[in-house]
Amino acid sequence: MPGNTFGHLLRLTTFGESHGLSIGGIVDGVPPGLELCEKDLQRELDLRKPGQGSTSTARKEADLVHIQSGLFQGKTTGTPIAFLIENTNQQSSDYDELARVFRPGHADFTYHTKYHGFRDYRGGGRASGRETAARVAAGAIAAKILAQISVEIFAASVEFGGIGIDNEFVDLAGALARPYFAASDSVISRWDQAVQKARENHDTLGGIVQIEANNVPAGLGEPVFDKISAMLGHGLLSVGAVKGVEFGDGFQAARSTGSANNDLLLAPKSAGALPGFATNHAGGMLGGITTGQSIIARVAVKPIASVPRPQQTVDLDGHPCQITIGGRHDLSAIPRIVPVLRAMTALVLADAWLMQNSLG
Amino acid sequence: MPGNTFGHLLRLTTFGESHGLSIGGIVDGVPPGLELCEKDLQRELDLRKPGQGSTSTARKEADLVHIQSGLFQGKTTGTPIAFLIENTNQQSSDYDELARVFRPGHADFTYHTKYHGFRDYRGGGRASGRETAARVAAGAIAAKILAQISVEIFAASVEFGGIGIDNEFVDLAGALARPYFAASDSVISRWDQAVQKARENHDTLGGIVQIEANNVPAGLGEPVFDKISAMLGHGLLSVGAVKGVEFGDGFQAARSTGSANNDLLLAPKSAGALPGFATNHAGGMLGGITTGQSIIARVAVKPIASVPRPQQTVDLDGHPCQITIGGRHDLSAIPRIVPVLRAMTALVLADAWLMQNSLG
Amino acid sequence: MPGNTFGHLLRLTTFGESHGLSIGGIVDGVPPGLELCEKDLQRELDLRKPGQGSTSTARKEADLVHIQSGLFQGKTTGTPIAFLIENTNQQSSDYDELARVFRPGHADFTYHTKYHGFRDYRGGGRASGRETAARVAAGAIAAKILAQISVEIFAASVEFGGIGIDNEFVDLAGALARPYFAASDSVISRWDQAVQKARENHDTLGGIVQIEANNVPAGLGEPVFDKISAMLGHGLLSVGAVKGVEFGDGFQAARSTGSANNDLLLAPKSAGALPGFATNHAGGMLGGITTGQSIIARVAVKPIASVPRPQQTVDLDGHPCQITIGGRHDLSAIPRIVPVLRAMTALVLADAWLMQNSLG
Amino acid sequence: MPGNTFGHLLRLTTFGESHGLSIGGIVDGVPPGLELCEKDLQRELDLRKPGQGSTSTARKEADLVHIQSGLFQGKTTGTPIAFLIENTNQQSSDYDELARVFRPGHADFTYHTKYHGFRDYRGGGRASGRETAARVAAGAIAAKILAQISVEIFAASVEFGGIGIDNEFVDLAGALARPYFAASDSVISRWDQAVQKARENHDTLGGIVQIEANNVPAGLGEPVFDKISAMLGHGLLSVGAVKGVEFGDGFQAARSTGSANNDLLLAPKSAGALPGFATNHAGGMLGGITTGQSIIARVAVKPIASVPRPQQTVDLDGHPCQITIGGRHDLSAIPRIVPVLRAMTALVLADAWLMQNSLG
Repeated sequence: MPGNTFGHLLRLTTFGESHGLSIGGIVDGVPPGLELCEKDLQRELDLRKPGQGSTSTARKEADLVHIQSGLFQGKTTGTPIAFLIENTNQQSSDYDELARVFRPGHADFTYHTKYHGFRDYRGGGRASGRETAARVAAGAIAAKILAQISVEIFAASVEFGGIGIDNEFVDLAGALARPYFAASDSVISRWDQAVQKARENHDTLGGIVQIEANNVPAGLGEPVFDKISAMLGHGLLSVGAVKGVEFGDGFQAARSTGSANNDLLLAPKSAGALPGFATNHAGGMLGGITTGQSIIARVAVKPIASVPRPQQTVDLDGHPCQITIGGRHDLSAIPRIVPVLRAMTALVLADAWLMQNSLG
Repeated sequence: MPGNTFGHLLRLTTFGESHGLSIGGIVDGVPPGLELCEKDLQRELDLRKPGQGSTSTARKEADLVHIQSGLFQGKTTGTPIAFLIENTNQQSSDYDELARVFRPGHADFTYHTKYHGFRDYRGGGRASGRETAARVAAGAIAAKILAQISVEIFAASVEFGGIGIDNEFVDLAGALARPYFAASDSVISRWDQAVQKARENHDTLGGIVQIEANNVPAGLGEPVFDKISAMLGHGLLSVGAVKGVEFGDGFQAARSTGSANNDLLLAPKSAGALPGFATNHAGGMLGGITTGQSIIARVAVKPIASVPRPQQTVDLDGHPCQITIGGRHDLSAIPRIVPVLRAMTALVLADAWLMQNSLG
Repeated sequence: MPGNTFGHLLRLTTFGESHGLSIGGIVDGVPPGLELCEKDLQRELDLRKPGQGSTSTARKEADLVHIQSGLFQGKTTGTPIAFLIENTNQQSSDYDELARVFRPGHADFTYHTKYHGFRDYRGGGRASGRETAARVAAGAIAAKILAQISVEIFAASVEFGGIGIDNEFVDLAGALARPYFAASDSVISRWDQAVQKARENHDTLGGIVQIEANNVPAGLGEPVFDKISAMLGHGLLSVGAVKGVEFGDGFQAARSTGSANNDLLLAPKSAGALPGFATNHAGGMLGGITTGQSIIARVAVKPIASVPRPQQTVDLDGHPCQITIGGRHDLSAIPRIVPVLRAMTALVLADAWLMQNSLG
Repeated sequence: MPGNTFGHLLRLTTFGESHGLSIGGIVDGVPPGLELCEKDLQRELDLRKPGQGSTSTARKEADLVHIQSGLFQGKTTGTPIAFLIENTNQQSSDYDELARVFRPGHADFTYHTKYHGFRDYRGGGRASGRETAARVAAGAIAAKILAQISVEIFAASVEFGGIGIDNEFVDLAGALARPYFAASDSVISRWDQAVQKARENHDTLGGIVQIEANNVPAGLGEPVFDKISAMLGHGLLSVGAVKGVEFGDGFQAARSTGSANNDLLLAPKSAGALPGFATNHAGGMLGGITTGQSIIARVAVKPIASVPRPQQTVDLDGHPCQITIGGRHDLSAIPRIVPVLRAMTALVLADAWLMQNSLG
């Protein structure tokens, strides 16, 4: 309830500040008998790790994950899986100035107000993007649950610095091998130029991430308030820097007509199978319940707030001042946010699947 | 957990199918001492009532609300407020065909699959838009809670049938007096033409609704997973027909730069007041916590799935067939969805305020 | 969260005051395809109905239940089941005095304090035992879920007015046919005398109820905090007038030794069956998880607080005064509390079973 | 929901097995600005530490707690407080036999069944009493919250091995300084003899713990299902070995009469103060809401299941066999359970207080 727990039957509770001893979490509700090891989590964490790629911070964190519980002889036991990631490369002195000045675009002011002035200002404290590492580790566990029913989740950058990829060229499956976790090779050089230009302008960039979940069984999601879109939306919008989410044709659907937007049903491909669909404008859900088609979502990611130039702001006393943000910051949340969004998608779908299982 | 409850400290649980005896809900967690009467709920329900305006169904429902509990001598007592709305104008025979055929774009197939074939097919059953009346009634209660701290929530249609309203002309406050709950008079005649054309084409339309909440105190929303954006997103995406949601500049923010997108902080206007902001690209939130600026959201609404023309589909046995949907249907969820989205916003903000109160 | 909802996957939310229009509730999470009708609920409600037996109030309520939703063609659909029970026999004038005086042993003072003076004082308002009718109706639904796996729940009075039934004579199965829902015929005449004497003394009585659930599958209950004992304890202690609960040997176990208290395991009776136990000191649970043995609980019920004689108390202003409670009151919560406790047991066990199902 | 989280606004989620790397937990919802350090937790943990007193295991654990997050400059920040306690003194080889044999009175069989055979059998795994260390650490945080409003919680052993302390001699405040955390010096020698005798008999003992919370504000607890008794009962019954709980006169109240059991209200001691009560049979609650009087609870603790003698049981295949439990075990959960029960009481009361705060 106080906001650091996510999910119903599969529940993630996280902790940790950017410059504390460690960050981590507890995943409760993992079914027993699942093969799992630290490497499963580490592989995903490595995708999110800082210090890689042209948009990333110079802060290097090994981000080694240590599982504390819930495994025995290489398998889950149904009990909570706790994991820790130590904060090894803190340079808190970078942040001394932040004790008294609110950075524009950051949560400094809102946390200060919410928590009556008690705030770990170092690196954004709890509001730092660093907390998303715990989501990624937990998402890896959720992905293992989903792998049992062959659900696969892909995510990739489909737009960066305003430069998008045409839908026909989008290849999510190959994205992890590309710079920016891009959905196509065709944009890489233009995105490189955008990075170059942003660096010259002492500025930062945003983008759009597309997510696709395949082989999702029909019937997941709960009416009325916990539609799969609502739960996914909750999860994706809870990631810092996310300013919008849409499913299927999303905002374009608002401009379509019913006859064009409806996905017509087709006869099952084989006896006993579920019906198919002629199109997937809906993004894999009807009435908030999955159809068996691929779930498709797109997420808007704002530019990083830590722009390396002087900005106007106020201090704790409300006095106007300028701030020039030091520290080590990414130029964009793209691509490091990609595995985070994938993790949130996995957490929601695994949770929805366990919920549906309870019906027998 | 099974999806018919929404909220943490202010909780709405709803029930009811399109063609059952009644629909309604229970609102738990309303603070004591609030002046409240049925008229407060009825006024909002009347805005959503079918049978009004050019896009609405011919089904007429008085939608009279009856409060059962939680009030004494005109005031709330802190105990649950239950309310009922009778279904008076059911024409179930309209729906006989639906027992065996899945309507495209509807939840028929997904509910059938989720609930193992047990389904009230009349008028969409639980998946009918009719359930949103309970949200509107509850939202009126939430709005009364928020009125104590002067929070006002406006919502209006800013795009319909692909015809949008330029941002500079958007006037949310006057929307309820206009057809389509439009944000501007300037588009009415073109929207009328779009309706005319859609009727001629036996088709339906969608649109975009903008929401603005003013006077929201700074500090609402919970890190990490229950950011105000995540909770609002959850609530708004849980409304049928909603395919996307964005906050502040939303998807446009993804194309901006950090220097342009950051809202610079300004000195407080008076001693003791909170700092102000030069702009509101963020839509009233930073790090998922409200800033004290207006919360701004935009919601994509798909076209109504019940297009009045033959459509290809399958029956329960998976056999291809055609369906021509009879019954009485809206041409668009615009504008009846507007008070529903306003209600969900009120429920989330009132809940977030109670949560923040608990910190003392 | 504000306390009027119970359960995880099977959730009951109730509403209603003693002298409001109606009381009722919503049961969410009932699996689809279950045969259910109003009679199933009414049968249980009739067991709790006032105006029956020597200890009961003269207030007569038909307590007719009306199901509003969630059923179609005689079966559950997986959507919420709402039900209403009208308050038909209110004599609010009986309670005028209570507007300004706190009755000893009642919640008048605590509700007044909790809700800042806003309180429906008529008949105890929300704190009236009348709210338990909603529990009984919901418990009947839970019992139907459990009947699918042959779980049967019995409850009976095993002590009344200090006169107990020896363990060897306890017959829970036949209790509903006996006065006081007594666990044995042998005590009826002595209990009658106790009633007679209490009436002469203008006093009221309490007792102890024993509950037994048979055929409960092994494996229900959740570590660590939601042990089956904890969930049952929560449910049973949430019933007004309950002052204690114990499982198996309960408080006697505290006086035993490990060697005497341990239930030794026995070989399964047939191949593939679960092991048996030589005894059942534990009351059907180990480590908070069900063993497959019968669950056994005992519940302490305090005497009715509305004693028909003058009592010392204070008024709203804190001035000492006397109160002589009028109105129509039971002489004991025994036996009307028996179906209520049975209902709570059913709700907990059905919920725990759905939880376990989610593991696959 | 899967059972490893406790509380509403103050939430504890725990993890860890007896022989894993560590145990620990996350406390979410702690208000900001509270002075807190590891010593506050350690002091309570030291009371529960094994290897002290005549009834305790020979297993020695330093049980040093390490706080990972949520503190800054010695104060809470409102963000989750995670803490770890390493398992340093594991002798897993002691438990090899347990891989295939179910110990009587333990959760071996039920966990095996619940979790489909996947189980960390070393030292009871998750079902070990060792998990209660996390409760104690969290309870220390809750106690700090409560200290702000002067709530003090005492707990003591009032019965051990069947030898009780007369109510008139009960002194809870001095218990922590006595062996067995006894409520009186008068029983110590007899309890010593009981230990001696139990050791000779290769047997184990149980007892009863009394809890008292003073200065609890009136108005805490939520109707209808989350009465303070229900929430306390849930928390106390969730502790392993607890078989019963009662409030105020508890099971004795069932034998009383209304006129004797009612606590008459008295005029406030000073203007503006709340009314007082002539007695406290109710244990500090009416209608499930606190009265401002002391909360009094008594908890039945069963004898330790690990009796050091051969016992009859079955193995994984259902074959009868004998087991003689090795390892290092307490002779009684008394007194180490005392700080655990105190911790659970603190968690519930602090949660209830935050809930009440949300009403404004």
